[in-house]
Amino acid sequence: MPVNYATPAADQLFPVAGVSLGVAEAEIRKKNRRDLTLVALDAGCTVAGVFTQNRFCAAPVQLCRNHLAGGKEIRALVINTGIANAGTGEPGRQTAQASCEAVGAMLGVAADQVLPFSTGVILEPLPVERLKAGLPAAQADLKADNWHAAAHAIMTTDTVAKAASRTVAVNSKKVTISGVSKGAGMIRPNMATMLGFLATDAGIAQPLLDKLVKEAADASFNCITVDGDTSTNDSYVMIATGQSGASFASETDAGWADVKAAIVAVSVELAQAIVRDGEGATKFITVAVEGGKIVDECRQVGYAIGHSPLVKTAFFASDPNLGRILAAIGYAGIGDLDVDGVKVWLDDVLVAENGGRAAAYKEEDGARVMAQAEITVRVDLGRGSAKANVYTCDFSYDYVKINADYRS
Amino acid sequence: MPVNYATPAADQLFPVAGVSLGVAEAEIRKKNRRDLTLVALDAGCTVAGVFTQNRFCAAPVQLCRNHLAGGKEIRALVINTGIANAGTGEPGRQTAQASCEAVGAMLGVAADQVLPFSTGVILEPLPVERLKAGLPAAQADLKADNWHAAAHAIMTTDTVAKAASRTVAVNSKKVTISGVSKGAGMIRPNMATMLGFLATDAGIAQPLLDKLVKEAADASFNCITVDGDTSTNDSYVMIATGQSGASFASETDAGWADVKAAIVAVSVELAQAIVRDGEGATKFITVAVEGGKIVDECRQVGYAIGHSPLVKTAFFASDPNLGRILAAIGYAGIGDLDVDGVKVWLDDVLVAENGGRAAAYKEEDGARVMAQAEITVRVDLGRGSAKANVYTCDFSYDYVKINADYRS
Repeated sequence: MPVNYATPAADQLFPVAGVSLGVAEAEIRKKNRRDLTLVALDAGCTVAGVFTQNRFCAAPVQLCRNHLAGGKEIRALVINTGIANAGTGEPGRQTAQASCEAVGAMLGVAADQVLPFSTGVILEPLPVERLKAGLPAAQADLKADNWHAAAHAIMTTDTVAKAASRTVAVNSKKVTISGVSKGAGMIRPNMATMLGFLATDAGIAQPLLDKLVKEAADASFNCITVDGDTSTNDSYVMIATGQSGASFASETDAGWADVKAAIVAVSVELAQAIVRDGEGATKFITVAVEGGKIVDECRQVGYAIGHSPLVKTAFFASDPNLGRILAAIGYAGIGDLDVDGVKVWLDDVLVAENGGRAAAYKEEDGARVMAQAEITVRVDLGRGSAKANVYTCDFSYDYVKINADYRS
Repeated sequence: MPVNYATPAADQLFPVAGVSLGVAEAEIRKKNRRDLTLVALDAGCTVAGVFTQNRFCAAPVQLCRNHLAGGKEIRALVINTGIANAGTGEPGRQTAQASCEAVGAMLGVAADQVLPFSTGVILEPLPVERLKAGLPAAQADLKADNWHAAAHAIMTTDTVAKAASRTVAVNSKKVTISGVSKGAGMIRPNMATMLGFLATDAGIAQPLLDKLVKEAADASFNCITVDGDTSTNDSYVMIATGQSGASFASETDAGWADVKAAIVAVSVELAQAIVRDGEGATKFITVAVEGGKIVDECRQVGYAIGHSPLVKTAFFASDPNLGRILAAIGYAGIGDLDVDGVKVWLDDVLVAENGGRAAAYKEEDGARVMAQAEITVRVDLGRGSAKANVYTCDFSYDYVKINADYRS
């Protein structure tokens, strides 16, 4: 059960003019499930993305990078679940290329105007013939009002589909933003998450979109961790169709701040949904680190806490075993950290200061907070004004069960 | 159940002339268990240690560092389990100091000739009055032939006591080496493990012993991980009494190589015992990384694999889900790694090369190795001649259970 998260209803996910989506059953890995998603873009869109920094990055990630760098207008995305097409070497690159060629031929665009995405098991070959055979059904299903189905068709071990949508009024125009994401394990993004797609009918010039996708990822997908494993396939792609009539070329344009804030908010919602649905998660934890000299050291501390199996099992047990949090702060890698200046709160409860337990701290106060489904661990490093958030979940029996059973 | 490990019988743990050990029940945290260990050293010993790099290092670790740096002859060690005396601020330093003063007064030595060690729950105050009250019983129990009891008295979540002993004939003398260690969770040492103590009746000059303890730790305790959490209390201390009559002042001394090899071997045995008894462990895994440009990058890759919850749950499930290993190699942080040059073996089975699955690999071969209790993951990075080993265990339901229940 995800922590305080439910997929929005289909009618809460707004169409984005210029984007149509279709899903199909291609039997990539299992029968009787929708595992293939096609996204068709009208001419005139800008598209930007950020991708995993894993050196064993998947073949489709390599093609995405190449196609975006090539500068041709992107006209379609093809996404399969079941097989990640990662750790597949040269044959993997050929199958990813073949899927782009098939989509391109079907839609009458070039192969390098197609971005391919795969998610699922690593090191197994992608059955590209089955993918190609499924494409006509996905094409027949293409419609603007299909975000809900797409959110479901990209899932792997996710227990719920993840999607978010909102509108913002700007310059007398209504701008719509919709997005979907997937991921529940192998989540410690580094530039992006497993898979995330966001589209807006705002027009956003390419340089501005390139910058936005990085900033939005840094504020969202790059702040989450489930298990500290950076996937081979992490991708976050942003599409701007321009069909709302509201267009932006510069950060100083009127209305841009509102559009940007809404896009970042949708990104955060999509990213947090992944943590809320983290494999085996029973709690959603915000690690808010402040008082650092630089943002990077705040993130280091946030991730040390967010990755620690000891901290995460204590959250699962609702056990205010706070020493584990201090230990994680201590080994986060800040060599000159003065621990006597560090303060730690669980929500509003001050639990540690002066190098140890806070004098006024009572175990029952800690236990009360730990019993909640949503908890904020606030850390003040006491050495500056930088801050960063990391979002994570607890570590339960079910994490082990899910990951011990995943392939079987 | 530890993986292929049983505590040696008491008569297999040889006394080390010059060292006597006593244990007692001090009710540090629980009644009816031996939780206090006193080690008394004859005059004339050299002592050296390596300690955690956690900034929230425990109060006793700070005192150990100070007392060793002070240069006075160390005459006693006092070790309690139950409470770690970490994250306890200035009061914690005072209780650690008080325990040294009590031992010193009892044995007629100065407080700074005593090294204190604590292990157990972090952030709770050490009941130093109970510790002091237990000291006379520990003193009354002092005897040379007591390593077995000491190994038991320092345990926390360990399921078996860990000890090792051997003798080596050198320069017509018999040199004896005995050691104990403890630890099962919060294990990702950085300079040393939770607690390890080794004594030899060889004489080893201080500079040589200082160097040896670092080298031995690097080859043993600094190669292991259970959960990636670096403890606040990690300490590895080495004692050389000189009472065998065989003494060494330089690495070129006759016989030194044999003595050093034996001491390193005992260190490795003590360190591996911790992984074999890792919380919830059902398998012992050696990650042997070779072909690196430098040792550090081999260790990075080894730890990325050894820390990955996804890899560790796959081992628990005996599932040759090898893509998770490739993913871990890919995110280990070698920015210019050419993945097409990487090879991976499970024992003798080549599973990956040329960026993907090896052509001859059969799933049943991988499954056969994964079903074993001891597995070597061998990785050739294909870019140099450096190598490093990391020892780890799998990740099971019981890890979560143990750590969710630890304080209750």
